[in-house]
Amino acid sequence: MPEQNLSAVLAHAETRRDADLEHLFTLLRQPSISAQNVGVAECADLELKLLQDAGLEAKLLPTSGHPMVYGEWLGAPGKPTVLFYGHYDVQPADPLDLWESEPFEPEIRDGRIYCRGVADNKAQHFSHIAAIRAWMQAAGSLPVNVKVLLEGEEEVGSPHLDEVAEKYGDLLKADLVYTSDGPVTNDQYPEIAFGVRGLLYVELRSTGPNRDLHSGHWGGVAPNPAWQLVRLLNTMVDEQNNVLIEGFYDEVLEPTPGARKAMEALPFDTQQTIAGIGIDRMVPPANLPYADRIMARPTLNIAGINGGYSGPGSKTIIPAKAMVKIDMRLVPEQTPDEIWEKVKAHVDAYVARTGEDIELVRLDGGMLPSFTPVEHPMAEVVRDAVEAGFGKRPIDIPLVGGSLPDAVWTKTLGMPSFLVPYGAPEQANHSPNESYRVERLWQGITTSATLLARLAEM
Amino acid sequence: MPEQNLSAVLAHAETRRDADLEHLFTLLRQPSISAQNVGVAECADLELKLLQDAGLEAKLLPTSGHPMVYGEWLGAPGKPTVLFYGHYDVQPADPLDLWESEPFEPEIRDGRIYCRGVADNKAQHFSHIAAIRAWMQAAGSLPVNVKVLLEGEEEVGSPHLDEVAEKYGDLLKADLVYTSDGPVTNDQYPEIAFGVRGLLYVELRSTGPNRDLHSGHWGGVAPNPAWQLVRLLNTMVDEQNNVLIEGFYDEVLEPTPGARKAMEALPFDTQQTIAGIGIDRMVPPANLPYADRIMARPTLNIAGINGGYSGPGSKTIIPAKAMVKIDMRLVPEQTPDEIWEKVKAHVDAYVARTGEDIELVRLDGGMLPSFTPVEHPMAEVVRDAVEAGFGKRPIDIPLVGGSLPDAVWTKTLGMPSFLVPYGAPEQANHSPNESYRVERLWQGITTSATLLARLAEM
Repeated sequence: MPEQNLSAVLAHAETRRDADLEHLFTLLRQPSISAQNVGVAECADLELKLLQDAGLEAKLLPTSGHPMVYGEWLGAPGKPTVLFYGHYDVQPADPLDLWESEPFEPEIRDGRIYCRGVADNKAQHFSHIAAIRAWMQAAGSLPVNVKVLLEGEEEVGSPHLDEVAEKYGDLLKADLVYTSDGPVTNDQYPEIAFGVRGLLYVELRSTGPNRDLHSGHWGGVAPNPAWQLVRLLNTMVDEQNNVLIEGFYDEVLEPTPGARKAMEALPFDTQQTIAGIGIDRMVPPANLPYADRIMARPTLNIAGINGGYSGPGSKTIIPAKAMVKIDMRLVPEQTPDEIWEKVKAHVDAYVARTGEDIELVRLDGGMLPSFTPVEHPMAEVVRDAVEAGFGKRPIDIPLVGGSLPDAVWTKTLGMPSFLVPYGAPEQANHSPNESYRVERLWQGITTSATLLARLAEM
Repeated sequence: MPEQNLSAVLAHAETRRDADLEHLFTLLRQPSISAQNVGVAECADLELKLLQDAGLEAKLLPTSGHPMVYGEWLGAPGKPTVLFYGHYDVQPADPLDLWESEPFEPEIRDGRIYCRGVADNKAQHFSHIAAIRAWMQAAGSLPVNVKVLLEGEEEVGSPHLDEVAEKYGDLLKADLVYTSDGPVTNDQYPEIAFGVRGLLYVELRSTGPNRDLHSGHWGGVAPNPAWQLVRLLNTMVDEQNNVLIEGFYDEVLEPTPGARKAMEALPFDTQQTIAGIGIDRMVPPANLPYADRIMARPTLNIAGINGGYSGPGSKTIIPAKAMVKIDMRLVPEQTPDEIWEKVKAHVDAYVARTGEDIELVRLDGGMLPSFTPVEHPMAEVVRDAVEAGFGKRPIDIPLVGGSLPDAVWTKTLGMPSFLVPYGAPEQANHSPNESYRVERLWQGITTSATLLARLAEM
């Protein structure tokens, strides 16, 4: 029955394309810049109305920041429940002078919609809403239970997502979470990402003399805080990029057999990929496949180092201070808290041994890594839906290198989570002339509509 | 005879104090800022006239920069020849708003002359000229042969001193070089410094990807230039501050027995000295006396390190570039050229082994270390003169930590060189409200006048 309905739904969706574009454009014309608190509340109201018009029961979930917009339809008892997550806030539009059209006046050129926020994330989550509406209009109901959560603070780091998960955990319960955001890795392949790396960010601050000193008068006598950092850093990572901090790898999981298989099956050309950043070989260890580096190994990265004089020419000083910023990308099941304790123990022991004046500071709470096994039974349903929408079997990406608050679904609320980007790499997220291919809008709607049908068959 | 004459000379000098102050003030009122090319030629003319009035045959020695002023009196055949070296250029006066009186209008307050350049170096070399004039006026001649060389580019690094030494080597030949510049280490003790450390300044530039990268997307794949520098630096110096570059210590001389004795006899309180820079112990190795650190050990100092993000908060990037500036203080008989070759070989080998993109750049020609043995027969004469002028036996400082082009005398021209500061630590060289104690002017004149008498007795 859902299969028969799906045909009608998809046929109906095709007739609705002009109306969908109009609805999307209304949404796009409404600035919703969370970082500048511009138009966010107005955009939340528009989203609320969109969900209601699509046939959901919808309301705002207040937070101590911008509200989330929530909608649900639970008229399919005994059937699975899917939670669509998206965000209605957008990045600031500047630099304005680099836009070829008004940033908040959508314009179609060469098959692409140009507007701030179109790709990140309005057109993507709008695909789900349009699919829901098409189901409601063509079939009179949805084949499964549906929940939609649209956040208004994703672009400022989702500071209240944990709060909402804690407060509305029961409301948000579902059998899977489905997020369409960001671009696919390679335009040639639709993809499903099953997880993200976590993050811990720390700073080391080293102090030497009470002021910059003449390196002639004091060299050999006064401590140099830059040397102190260099030596400490060198105890943290070896030449093969192994992190030497005790217990750092204790919680690292081997990729599951399915993940391992998916990693080996990735169709990307590593040499081509790294040529794009101007290098011809990856860092040690040699012979480690690209996928392992991103998906199976945590990192300890120097994001910045600074101390003393770095202007033109020569200045002969012993700097009074030096600092280094370090981000660590964590893989399942490492946690920022656990790794923080281990880094702290390492630095404490180093300071105790050397007596050097080095302070370790944790700059934020960090982010948990998150993953859903590629073997999860829901995964096959998602693959089928994406194949229906994009005409090609998607690639499985067991883990993406960056960090998102995905663990709120997988850890806090215990649900499988699938990241299914509908966008493409050239869409210029966060940059001037952000755009989205109109074709991808229709492909996304087909994918989301198909997902509901396939879930109903489980 | 010189002893008898000396009494007359010193008595005469006392009667000339008002005239001396007037002459010095004329010199001080003339700005001579080499870095800004302000008044340098005018000041050279004033100096020329001062030397001529004192009874020397004087002329300008042109260079490809500002001229040097040279004067001589060679009427004591068979007697030793002393070359007094000084400089008539001064530092810029800014920040002007911090001066309590006009920077180029000398003013006496509380027994101190306030004026830019009074301590560094006009009052100090003026002491020699005043002593020469007193000898000429009171005794009708000088007891030894005297040469005076006043440079106009000392404050911009003496770029033409080598050129002058090469071109006028015969003209400048003397039995000793005598320089009064800078402050003594400790106001309680007059001192003689017998040498300086040399200098080599290099920069390491490390390149990673062709732009700053997202540390999530690329962490574990792309090279990090800051890590590259940290690891390379760590191969250059160990935790005990031993330089690990092959052959780095090959040319280091053991201090002579006299220098060793002088180092052990230094009356300074190390704990008090380092408390002034906010530390309570010196860097490793432990138990190495303060004097050894400055006078017997070269250094490899990080003067600056920079790469990636060092602003507030967190930014998660792999930087495209990182750099470090390194100054090396060299001890006799290391040379900047020899050390440059050794550093280069070290970096070349490292780069060959790791394949990392690291460039080594030499930022300037460097400076040779220089020393005159404390056992030199002239040293005792100098000590006697200083004791006569300052009422206390001077301390021998075998080597000062900073770098000066002293090797032009000791290496290029093969003469012993004695650095006899007449100034005091609180005189604010290079800073606003530079000043010089009037009493030290009279002590300096007595010392210089006595030196001529003592040399004649050799």
